[in-house]
Parts: sequence; structure tokens; C-alpha cells
Amino acid sequence: MREKDGHWMQRAIQLARQGIGLTRPNPPVGAVLVKSGRIVGQGWHRQAGTAHAEVKAIQAAGSKAKGATLYVTLEPCSTFGKTPPCTEAILQSGIRRVVIGCLDPNPVHHGRGVRILRSSGIEVTVGVQREDSLRLVEAFSKWVRTGRPWVTLKMALSIDGRVADASGNSRWITGKEARRSVHDLRRTADAIMVGKRTALLDDPTLLPRPALGRKPLRIVLDSHGSLPLRLRLFTDGHSEQTVVFTSWRVRRGWVERVRATGASIVRVRRRVRGLDLNQVLLRLGEMGVMHLLCEGGGQLAGNLVRARLVDRLVLYFGPRLLGECSLPGFVLGRIVLARAPRLFIESVSRAGDSIQVTAHLQ
Amino acid sequence: MREKDGHWMQRAIQLARQGIGLTRPNPPVGAVLVKSGRIVGQGWHRQAGTAHAEVKAIQAAGSKAKGATLYVTLEPCSTFGKTPPCTEAILQSGIRRVVIGCLDPNPVHHGRGVRILRSSGIEVTVGVQREDSLRLVEAFSKWVRTGRPWVTLKMALSIDGRVADASGNSRWITGKEARRSVHDLRRTADAIMVGKRTALLDDPTLLPRPALGRKPLRIVLDSHGSLPLRLRLFTDGHSEQTVVFTSWRVRRGWVERVRATGASIVRVRRRVRGLDLNQVLLRLGEMGVMHLLCEGGGQLAGNLVRARLVDRLVLYFGPRLLGECSLPGFVLGRIVLARAPRLFIESVSRAGDSIQVTAHLQ
Repeated sequence: MREKDGHWMQRAIQLARQGIGLTRPNPPVGAVLVKSGRIVGQGWHRQAGTAHAEVKAIQAAGSKAKGATLYVTLEPCSTFGKTPPCTEAILQSGIRRVVIGCLDPNPVHHGRGVRILRSSGIEVTVGVQREDSLRLVEAFSKWVRTGRPWVTLKMALSIDGRVADASGNSRWITGKEARRSVHDLRRTADAIMVGKRTALLDDPTLLPRPALGRKPLRIVLDSHGSLPLRLRLFTDGHSEQTVVFTSWRVRRGWVERVRATGASIVRVRRRVRGLDLNQVLLRLGEMGVMHLLCEGGGQLAGNLVRARLVDRLVLYFGPRLLGECSLPGFVLGRIVLARAPRLFIESVSRAGDSIQVTAHLQ
Repeated sequence: MREKDGHWMQRAIQLARQGIGLTRPNPPVGAVLVKSGRIVGQGWHRQAGTAHAEVKAIQAAGSKAKGATLYVTLEPCSTFGKTPPCTEAILQSGIRRVVIGCLDPNPVHHGRGVRILRSSGIEVTVGVQREDSLRLVEAFSKWVRTGRPWVTLKMALSIDGRVADASGNSRWITGKEARRSVHDLRRTADAIMVGKRTALLDDPTLLPRPALGRKPLRIVLDSHGSLPLRLRLFTDGHSEQTVVFTSWRVRRGWVERVRATGASIVRVRRRVRGLDLNQVLLRLGEMGVMHLLCEGGGQLAGNLVRARLVDRLVLYFGPRLLGECSLPGFVLGRIVLARAPRLFIESVSRAGDSIQVTAHLQ
């Protein structure tokens, strides 16, 4: 490792971050080409099917790539996908050294790019700014290994853990800053999911604002097939982003009407407490959803927690008390304290007048 | 203000803090006597009826008090109470300058000590480290102006705002560090209060551990007069610290049995939702309780919030989810979001595996 490796890799990581939420089913990647202490080319992956970050950096550098050092957040690919292998482009460019943030989490490719480059005489360093590089591919990593998306459960709660008052009104429990932060979160997701009750009560668009090019899928679970088509998910001009998960036993007329709006229908098994969430996640994985953001309500949140399908909780606590008649944040059934789901709190911070907590299930 | 005034006043504040929870119905006060850049005497108020902080510092300094500067967190008293006025002791000691953290919040005495000292030719500076000095007398200040204690509502909640599982078990929702922090809090209180259900479910002692000399009153509200006398509050050898608030319409036999344990009975009006909390606070104020710590449960917490009798909330969130069948933290009845009690969040921090939030009602 050389003195400025960390510095250049951080630059590559910053570039990669611009692609978060845009690249499905590819991970976000950033690359910087450095020669004699100066950047001669850089790039980040913008969309599946377009050039990878390394290739963009090499193209930008032109003949200056010869003898340069490539900093790339993720191990370069070594196979033909929608684009030719990056290892090939690197070899042809005359790059002398490659510095890699982290290896490809895909077990099939893990380490292959490094081997190919090394066997061609290129000096390769792995693991520079490893932690930040791994965080970039956290969702991709789970998806590529399990076929299921990485699941963030986001909830906006009152201080006493409620998602809405007794009439179902939740606008607004949290303050402006917390709501803005939710839109940042939405821009990192490939799909945003809610339960049927939330779809009915809030009539949400589930779109990030501003979208900045993001087009996340909008997932609604509706086991009985009874969602009204007047909801904004079907009428706001983005219905091609809407996917309704339902069961096999629903009326065909309703299915056809949903499809006529431009939305899709996916059918999975129905269980006692609702749709089979494991199946839902597998189907979303097949659709290329690497990062699923679930925004409640309490029933869906409880079912996801109970099925241990949550990878991360992002909880916003607004400065209000809603009392015992309001809607609970987590519908878990009757449990005893000793067997209650335990969290590991990762971070706690202020978000305007509200509190933001990041945690995962233990 | 001189260069080192802030430094010496902080020393006086540190001394004063040792008296928090010990001095009722006096405020905690600290004093430092400084001459030629060195401390020649110091003191803090330990117990009502014993010497005030200034007098202790003067006594400790002896003849060295002559020409010295006195740093005292609160304006010296100017009247005969259980002890002679401190202004007198200051005048007799030959002290040349007096630096005061904050004025006496008692409207009757406010500024009087300063006037007496100044008219005797002593140089007086007021407001050094004012904020910290005021915080020391926060509880005293409310009590002396309103006759009611300053009320801290402490709750140990799950992340989803529950105080116990469906069977009433709450041991332990929060972690060791949070529980230790509760004992720090108990040592600052003149009385610690719970509702009847909490007394029954938890059978708490409501004593700080270690007590470090504190003997807070233990208050239980029991509007129907049915608390069983097997509870630790009546049997643990500290029953003289136990006060049961009840209504006028309770069985005389029970009242006599409670008194026979050494505990006291205080009767107040009964309302629809329980005892008249305003009356409870006034009676506690008459008993010299300046700082009341309420430790729940959800019913009492809700009633206090509803009556707007809470000055500060200290909430500990343990890393657990307890779900919708468990006991709610705040029983508020049916309210709409727009009219839900609003909090102002003062601070958020980690307490081991739990989260500590300090807030007040807006």
C-alpha cells in the first residue's frame, strides 16, 4: 500500500456513491486513474448495460492510462455480461497497478479478477478503504449470495412507538428534516414496499423527491386483492413502477383492472398472517431488487421482524406522544419479554426536532 | 468579572452538586473562599438545619477570610430561617468581594442579599456560570414559586414505547448502564412516585442504590385503598419513607394497617381517571418535596402528561420490540395527531445498549 492510496480510493468511493439506487442489478462502483500524482481519468457506473466505472475512467484517460494506477472500489469483473470484462480493458490500456477496495462478493467471481490481472503482470493491491467499499456493495452482496434483497425497514414513529393516531392519520409524526432524510433513503432503494393498510390510509406515491433519476419499484402487498385503483400508485403516471403482490385466490377482474393501469401483479402463497414474505423477497430478488426499503405499516413491519427478514432498521421518532389508542409500530402478537426481538443499536442522532435510530435485529 | 471567576465558580458548583437530593427543602449550594489565588475555605450545604455553604467556607477559612473573595452558587440568604442569615456572616468575616452564580429564585428574597452586601460596601458580581448555577436550583425554584415540586417523569421503554410485556413483566427492558443511570437520577429526587399497578407488578423498593445518604420519600398512588401490605414498600425496613396517597372513601381498617407499618397516608380528591394529581403535587410541596421523580406506569405517566404536570421527561429505550399486546408507556385516551402532546427533545445519547432521551412538554 502506498501513501496516497487511501486518498484516491476515497475519491473513487465518492464517485461510486452517485450511482447508489441507479445501477440495479449491478452494484455502484467508482474508479479513478492516477498518474504522477494527478487524476487522468475517472468514472462511476450509472446504469446496468452501460460502461462500468473502470472502463469509463480508461476511456476518459485515453493514452494517458498507460503506466497509470487504477483505483476501483470493487474488484473488476472478469466475465462477459451486458458489457465485455473490465479485466480485458485494463490489460489493453497499459495500466500498471490496480488498487481495489474490496473483492467481488459474488462467490463465483470472488478473486477471479485479481488473479487474471496478477497473472498478466499487473501489480494488484486489495482492501484499501475496505469498510467503505464494502458498505457500497452491502445490498448487492446479500442479493448476489441469497437471491433476496437487503431489507431496510424504515418507520416514522411517535416517541411512544406509534405510527398513526386512532384514525390512521400519520401526517406528520416526524419533522421536516426527518422527512427529507427519508427521501435520501428512498433514493438508495431499488424498491419501496408498504402494506395494504398503509397504502389505503396514506395513499403514498412512494417516490423519492427529488428523484434525481431514480425509478424505484413501488411494492404493495394485498393478499386479498382489494386495493382500489383510485390510489396514486395507479394514477400518478408512474404506474409502470407499481407492483402489487397478491395471492392466487383473487378475483380475475381485479387483476385485469390493476394490469390495465400499467402496474404489475405478482402472485405468491398466502399464509395465516398475510402473504409469504420469504417468497415476496425471492420474487423481488428475481426482479433485480438488491435493496428493498419497507416503509410499514405496523402489520408488515411486525411480520418482517417475526420472519427475521430485516437487515437494518431506520427509525425516526417524532416529538409526539400518541397514547394507547393509536396504531402500534410493530404488530408482533403476544410475546414475553424474554423472547422479545432484540435489537443492536448502531447509531442514534438528531434529525431536526426528531430522533433517528439505526439498528439491526440481534 | 475577573479572569478566574468562572473557574472558581465551577469549583463551587461541583461542591454544590454533592448536596443534590440531600438538602430538602433547601437548594443545594456550594461556596469557595479564595485569597491571593488560593482556596482558603470551602463548603457545601449538606442538610436543612445545618450550616449553609457560605458559613462553612467562612468557618473553614477562619481569619484568612478577611479580604478574600467568596464564590457562592446562589445568592446568600438574608433572613433568619433555621440558621442565621449568611449575609451577616459574610459582613462579619471581612470578605471583600462576593461572586454569585444566580439570584435567589424566591420572589420574596430575590436580590435582597445582594442589596444588603452592596450597601455595606462589599463588591458583588452576579451571574458567573449562571446557567449551571440555575440548573442546581431548578427544582427549588419551581417549588418556591408554585408550592409544587419540579416533576421528572422517567420511563424505561422498549423501542416501540412499551413498559412491560402483556403479563406485566418489565425486568429488564433496558440494559445495566441505563438502570445504573436511573439510580443516579433517584439520588437527585426528594420523592419517587409510582402508580398502583407498577407497585403491584414490580414490587419496587424505589430506593437509590447505593443511597449515599439519600432518603427520598416513596410515593404510591392508590385511589381505592387496596394495596397489599406484603409489598416491599411496607416491609423492607424503610416504611417511614413510604407515603400512600389515597382518596377519602377508603376503608378505615386498611388505612390503619398501612399506618401500622410505619408508612403515611395522605388523602386527596378522587377524579374520573384517578387521584387529583394537582392536589397530590401540592401536598408533596407542603411536605418539602422539591424534586419529584415519577417512575410510571403508563396510566400515571399519561395522567401527568395530560394534566401538563411534567417538567422533564427522561426516557430510556431498551433494545427490544414488545409489540402491540404489551403495556403502553403513555395511556392518553383517544387523541388525534394534531392535538397529541408535543415534546421538545433536549438531548439524545447512548446508555450502554439503550438510548437515553431527555425532553420536556411543549
